[in-house]
Amino acid sequence: MNSEEFKQFGKAMIDYIATYLDNIRNRDVIPSVEPGYMTKLVPEEAPTKGENWRAIMTDLEKVIMPGITHWHSPYFHAYFPTANSYPAIVGELLSAGIGCVGFSWFSSPACTELEMLVMNWLAKLLGLPDCFLNKSGSSGGGTIQGSASETTFICLIAARDRTIKRIKQKFPHMTESDIRGRLVAYTSDQANSSVEKAGLIAAIPMKHLPSNEYGKLTAETLLEAVEKDESNGMFPCYVVATLGSTGTCAFDKLEEIGPICKKEGVWLHIDAAYAGTAFVCPEYRHLMKGIEFADSFNFNPHKWMLVNSDCSAMWLKESQPLIDAFKVERIYLRHKYEGLVPDYRHWQISLGRRFRALKVWFTLRIYGTDGIRNHIRHQASLAKYFEYVLKKDHRFDVPLSNMGLVLFNLRAGDNSTQKLLNLLTERKKLYLIPCHFMGKLVVRFVVCSRFTTAADIEFSLREIIAVANKLLLPTQEGVWLHIDAAYAGTAFVCQGMSE
Amino acid sequence: MNSEEFKQFGKAMIDYIATYLDNIRNRDVIPSVEPGYMTKLVPEEAPTKGENWRAIMTDLEKVIMPGITHWHSPYFHAYFPTANSYPAIVGELLSAGIGCVGFSWFSSPACTELEMLVMNWLAKLLGLPDCFLNKSGSSGGGTIQGSASETTFICLIAARDRTIKRIKQKFPHMTESDIRGRLVAYTSDQANSSVEKAGLIAAIPMKHLPSNEYGKLTAETLLEAVEKDESNGMFPCYVVATLGSTGTCAFDKLEEIGPICKKEGVWLHIDAAYAGTAFVCPEYRHLMKGIEFADSFNFNPHKWMLVNSDCSAMWLKESQPLIDAFKVERIYLRHKYEGLVPDYRHWQISLGRRFRALKVWFTLRIYGTDGIRNHIRHQASLAKYFEYVLKKDHRFDVPLSNMGLVLFNLRAGDNSTQKLLNLLTERKKLYLIPCHFMGKLVVRFVVCSRFTTAADIEFSLREIIAVANKLLLPTQEGVWLHIDAAYAGTAFVCQGMSE
Repeated sequence: MNSEEFKQFGKAMIDYIATYLDNIRNRDVIPSVEPGYMTKLVPEEAPTKGENWRAIMTDLEKVIMPGITHWHSPYFHAYFPTANSYPAIVGELLSAGIGCVGFSWFSSPACTELEMLVMNWLAKLLGLPDCFLNKSGSSGGGTIQGSASETTFICLIAARDRTIKRIKQKFPHMTESDIRGRLVAYTSDQANSSVEKAGLIAAIPMKHLPSNEYGKLTAETLLEAVEKDESNGMFPCYVVATLGSTGTCAFDKLEEIGPICKKEGVWLHIDAAYAGTAFVCPEYRHLMKGIEFADSFNFNPHKWMLVNSDCSAMWLKESQPLIDAFKVERIYLRHKYEGLVPDYRHWQISLGRRFRALKVWFTLRIYGTDGIRNHIRHQASLAKYFEYVLKKDHRFDVPLSNMGLVLFNLRAGDNSTQKLLNLLTERKKLYLIPCHFMGKLVVRFVVCSRFTTAADIEFSLREIIAVANKLLLPTQEGVWLHIDAAYAGTAFVCQGMSE
Repeated sequence: MNSEEFKQFGKAMIDYIATYLDNIRNRDVIPSVEPGYMTKLVPEEAPTKGENWRAIMTDLEKVIMPGITHWHSPYFHAYFPTANSYPAIVGELLSAGIGCVGFSWFSSPACTELEMLVMNWLAKLLGLPDCFLNKSGSSGGGTIQGSASETTFICLIAARDRTIKRIKQKFPHMTESDIRGRLVAYTSDQANSSVEKAGLIAAIPMKHLPSNEYGKLTAETLLEAVEKDESNGMFPCYVVATLGSTGTCAFDKLEEIGPICKKEGVWLHIDAAYAGTAFVCPEYRHLMKGIEFADSFNFNPHKWMLVNSDCSAMWLKESQPLIDAFKVERIYLRHKYEGLVPDYRHWQISLGRRFRALKVWFTLRIYGTDGIRNHIRHQASLAKYFEYVLKKDHRFDVPLSNMGLVLFNLRAGDNSTQKLLNLLTERKKLYLIPCHFMGKLVVRFVVCSRFTTAADIEFSLREIIAVANKLLLPTQEGVWLHIDAAYAGTAFVCQGMSE
């Protein structure tokens, strides 16, 4: 393929993507295929002779699209969003076109420098403390990782090695292996699965402490666990606090947990993968009160900030423990500016790194910080609208709503809620997933797609209520009156959240 | 930004990339900027109001390009290549456009299914044993990871947990922590830095055994180390053998190492990050003799196979140890087809995963397997051409050449070689890096860019010789006569490598 054919192929793909996203509502959000569907459509071996790009374009609707779960459909309400925006797509495109590897400053200076700058943009946009900024003379800083999972894990490794050093000074007779065998980490039972996984991979017990009735990890619970473990000769090394839990978007009480971590010398990591983006709006910042106690903070612009995956933003108060844990040197990796600028390979598992800062830069410039704030407030208001209408139907209960997430179930009980969810999934018009809240099965409804409008929310409401009507007696309340009332976006703009 | 603006922006970027790559020879391969150059060009905070995309296009040449090390310049001879091809760029574009997350089959079936299929395409193309194929009823399979570093690390974790289980059965009185404290892993002193890093992260001693004079790890060395450690009460759990080492493209003797690993129950991982692609050519396959002993095999299509980063191909003979090590469950991640198809989140550190199989599919279809083979043979022949000409200049020594890599230095000694390299780097026309070989400083010359022609090799030769002329007396030999002789590509086609 020469550059002329690339231009044709590339531009045809740009058109294809635009058309796909423009018309995404017309597709069932959940695909109809069964496992193995593609084996009938794709040959068992790669072709010997090269094909024309038009053959690939033809295959997209035949082979790929039937098996796509449309994460950017306005009817995708499962999980938290994965971001997708036009500037970020173009940023990803340019990153591939340049195709540099930014493992050290010298290996492509722009890659490291733009990353340092946009990480500062993000830190300021969220209102993070100054200690996290990339600046000369500072011991902290920020970088882009592939995922929150990766970040939680590597901070655990940094915490592990920092703790071993500390304990070794206190008890010089202990071997590193002995100390390692007594390390222990903590999070709440509401933490994301990736936190548990980090513990498994690091072989450090990750204790899932019980959250309170609001899904929050409290100081009392943590302190009790830490003291008990310490009295049993264990060494607490790491706490993962969640701001915006996966199940219920709960916020751990940082300002209470933080002082305990500080006192005990335990590394405090903040996982704000989804909800972190909301801190661009001052009305949400009270939820990160106590952030100054954090040793590391992570949120995913690739979730709610419109930057395509992968883009997980990680900041460290002190980068040295991570660098110490990860630093390996080779003659061929050295360069004359070492020490003057970060070599980001020491901040991550992999040696190679793509130019991911481009898509952050593009997204923030095209939207502006006002645009990002509008996006968050708009999505939160759509969630409020959904909640408002669904609550009018007394067959439903809405035990909780936070930011873009609404939890609901049927008052008729778990069995009915499960049936509702099954039937909705079978119909493939909406994608929703369950979780447990206060001992009951609930359905998570998340406003995910940036294309979502009030009319889309009404579509989702009608579908949910129609399925409920099939399962239960139709409501007596004439809930449609409420849907048909004009949607006044401003009325639902989130006024900040109650804790 | 609406879809119309996206089409304009996206197509302008396609044109920009085509123009950039068409004219990449006109840019110095090494940039002229100093640390901090970008802080003068980019504001300290993100803009409040959104900007027009044309402002970004204007900034590319002003802000980004001055700081780019051009990895796809034909004069980039440092490291091993990072891939870049037109179909792969378009594949990355579509992956961003669809923006699905493939952590389970259900979360986007096409994402998992295409990955299973293209991993089989790759396995067959390389001639890997059947046990690595994705097929129903098989306990093995393949998946795409982000990097060889990641792969080396996660296989170490799988090996760790498999070994702990085995030892625990043998010595039920031992705790897991005790066993963990006695684990030990091995590689050669020629292994990539990522292997050392994997050991650091996993907190398992990674012993760098001395390689022989050809840079190979031999059976005797490994056996001696294993037996010594076992007699000291250690538990050997993991061996990383390298096929195509970073420094000198050396190949460990798999067919000798393999049986030892099998006998001792030690996990054998193969790191063929660069050279793995060469196995598409039957004439190179003798270098992976003994592959059937491998528990895991990894190569990077994002190095030499024209698939843009990130795309690291990993196969496991048995996937269960990895799944056991990584599996965490949540109600919201479950689906009705579990067990029938792999849920790839259990095969990797992160939960999220992009649709990376698209770019593999696009690349193999557009090039065809013949096209991939031609690419490898052409690049190897260009390396031979470089070697052939440089050897005519008796001031240079060429102690080794393998595939796309040629090692050379000045007979005048390390001091002169270092000066040569420094001066070349200062001139910014070529990018080369050093390593040590047989106790001497050598320069690694790698044919990296897919755009490289014989004329480009001649340009690089002229530059190297011109700099040598500055440092030493000009050669008496009239080496240019050799460069000016017509380049007969076929004469340099690699006939397979000597071991």
